[in-house]
Amino acid sequence: VLCLTKMNSIKEVASADLLTVVEPGVVTGELQRKLEEEGLFYPPDPASLEASSIGGNIGNSAGGPRGFKYGMTKDYILGLEAVLPTGELVKTGARTVKCVTGYDLARLFTGSEGTLGVVTSAILRLIPLPEERITILASFKRLEDAASLVSEAVSAGLAPSALEIMDNVTLSAIRESSGLNSPEGTSALVLSEADGFKEVAVKEAQKVRDLSVKNGAISVQMEKEKERREKLWAARRGAFAALARKKPTTILEDIVVPRTRLVDMVKSVAEIGKRHQLVIATYGHAGDGNLHPTILCDKRDEDEMRRARAAAGDIFERALDLGGTLSGEHGIGFEKAGFMHKEVGEAGIRIMKRLKDSFDPKGIMNPGKMFE
Amino acid sequence: VLCLTKMNSIKEVASADLLTVVEPGVVTGELQRKLEEEGLFYPPDPASLEASSIGGNIGNSAGGPRGFKYGMTKDYILGLEAVLPTGELVKTGARTVKCVTGYDLARLFTGSEGTLGVVTSAILRLIPLPEERITILASFKRLEDAASLVSEAVSAGLAPSALEIMDNVTLSAIRESSGLNSPEGTSALVLSEADGFKEVAVKEAQKVRDLSVKNGAISVQMEKEKERREKLWAARRGAFAALARKKPTTILEDIVVPRTRLVDMVKSVAEIGKRHQLVIATYGHAGDGNLHPTILCDKRDEDEMRRARAAAGDIFERALDLGGTLSGEHGIGFEKAGFMHKEVGEAGIRIMKRLKDSFDPKGIMNPGKMFE
Repeated sequence: VLCLTKMNSIKEVASADLLTVVEPGVVTGELQRKLEEEGLFYPPDPASLEASSIGGNIGNSAGGPRGFKYGMTKDYILGLEAVLPTGELVKTGARTVKCVTGYDLARLFTGSEGTLGVVTSAILRLIPLPEERITILASFKRLEDAASLVSEAVSAGLAPSALEIMDNVTLSAIRESSGLNSPEGTSALVLSEADGFKEVAVKEAQKVRDLSVKNGAISVQMEKEKERREKLWAARRGAFAALARKKPTTILEDIVVPRTRLVDMVKSVAEIGKRHQLVIATYGHAGDGNLHPTILCDKRDEDEMRRARAAAGDIFERALDLGGTLSGEHGIGFEKAGFMHKEVGEAGIRIMKRLKDSFDPKGIMNPGKMFE
Repeated sequence: VLCLTKMNSIKEVASADLLTVVEPGVVTGELQRKLEEEGLFYPPDPASLEASSIGGNIGNSAGGPRGFKYGMTKDYILGLEAVLPTGELVKTGARTVKCVTGYDLARLFTGSEGTLGVVTSAILRLIPLPEERITILASFKRLEDAASLVSEAVSAGLAPSALEIMDNVTLSAIRESSGLNSPEGTSALVLSEADGFKEVAVKEAQKVRDLSVKNGAISVQMEKEKERREKLWAARRGAFAALARKKPTTILEDIVVPRTRLVDMVKSVAEIGKRHQLVIATYGHAGDGNLHPTILCDKRDEDEMRRARAAAGDIFERALDLGGTLSGEHGIGFEKAGFMHKEVGEAGIRIMKRLKDSFDPKGIMNPGKMFE
């Protein structure tokens, strides 16, 4: 195991060029706070941002709630320095947003799960910090209403910086741990944020509120003040930890479906949970069609684990049937390696393996990851 | 030579999922007009948009003026179907914005200059059409003032959808061909566009106007009406053709420098032209630091061509010295192949060649392109 946590220097912040150069061990949340002090913004915000490093974020092209408006890690990688398994040091990309000098190895590395080489330095694109941020929490009696708000907001061309959904299981877990308030009878939440110039953020937030009411919201809370906003987001980011306290074992999935199929997917997850007699929490980046169904189980219960694995398989198959993908921001790893051919086909696997071999002929980088 | 112009069907426009599926021969401008009718927007706008195809745009990750705000072709490729040189058909990417299932081959293909395979279908990401567009033309007495407006606009966090610069040589060529008006004494133009919600576009346009005046603009013209806006953009897009009428041979370059080095690069191009006794027009996507220095020469004049090649080399070297890159949106092709090692290093070339071999072991795809 290679540990890069001590390579954690922010080597440069070039405000006027809107970029920063960092080592892979820099913690995402720490980098963001430092940049905010200078009026700069690095959007990717995985829930793990206080623990995860930029190197890890590059490994799986981490996203997060803000992915809906701002994209994922791969949209912010301008250039990389990496050591290849052959021992060669390569520098790829540039200090400019535009660069088509040769193959885009920087973006190829992003999301490659450490299978191609070791990133030793990254040039990250930054944007100016938005002038205003307004967080909106809408409570619904039915999960379908929450999901249909999301679909309608996307169709209406709204561009909040985040559009998150949480079901009843998630809600009850985070309610205990975070003190989040929601009215009697709530069984689904949509948490969103509008940002940008003041006028834009206000206009966008009002549109989200109006659409929430139209879709049957029983309450809509709007917060501008930083601490109150942060509290709502901390509750959302704490969803996985809150769920993990419910049962000894937690299997976190990461499927994506086209936005118009979100309601179908949400219903299917509920149905799959029922069929396998499992509790599955559903929450995630609904605006992107990216859900994190989380199966609550106990690894000491063999029968339950068998059912959990079957349910995960059913969730993958259903996402693919709906025109979706196996992973939006967590990657393939070991667990989904056996499913990859269903999405990319045998020819897709073959060319990816040949590509991997061209970087790592001896297969020493994260062996077993991504390919069976 | 493989010709795909007849594979020109727009196979699907999925409004609610904000995507379209097209064949490679679809002409960019035609696609954009069709999408606009449905309130949808595919931003990449190379000057050649009425002739260039999506397949070609994918080949070099085409950009254009709107790249400043909206990014390049690679930012809009969700997925591809491609035939590999081995005869295998691969499907890569997804109908979703997020996808980290295996390596990001769709983005790897984008900008690969047809050296890895033949794209037969592409899934393109769309965004909602902006509510308002305002085009702003600012005239300056000195090119440095125009360049410093650009730098200041970027530093101030302004995000117009385009921020273009044109020098005196370009200006006099397009003035003749387009009937563009500019006051007596003008020797540089900045053409920009503000877009988005009405309020935002107006606010942004006013900020650009104020900054223009502050930087010494002798006139600022603002246009909201579509035909008048289009006329200004047609003049800009006609720059290369207008210059090509001046001399028999035109060498169009495509370097990028970090935004803060734009003034240095503009001055260097002028100095290089003087040193080699050549007329070099400078224009381009200044907001991105992406300039298209265009050398006017005559291929029948051997001495002039020798000087033109030397000047091009000097421009490349200077861009690299300033921390820039050899190509922003046109690619490497044959002409810059000999310079690539100066940017990506010998190790970079080696791994790119190994990658190329893993796709195309017999070297049948665009041989000689990108690598010497």
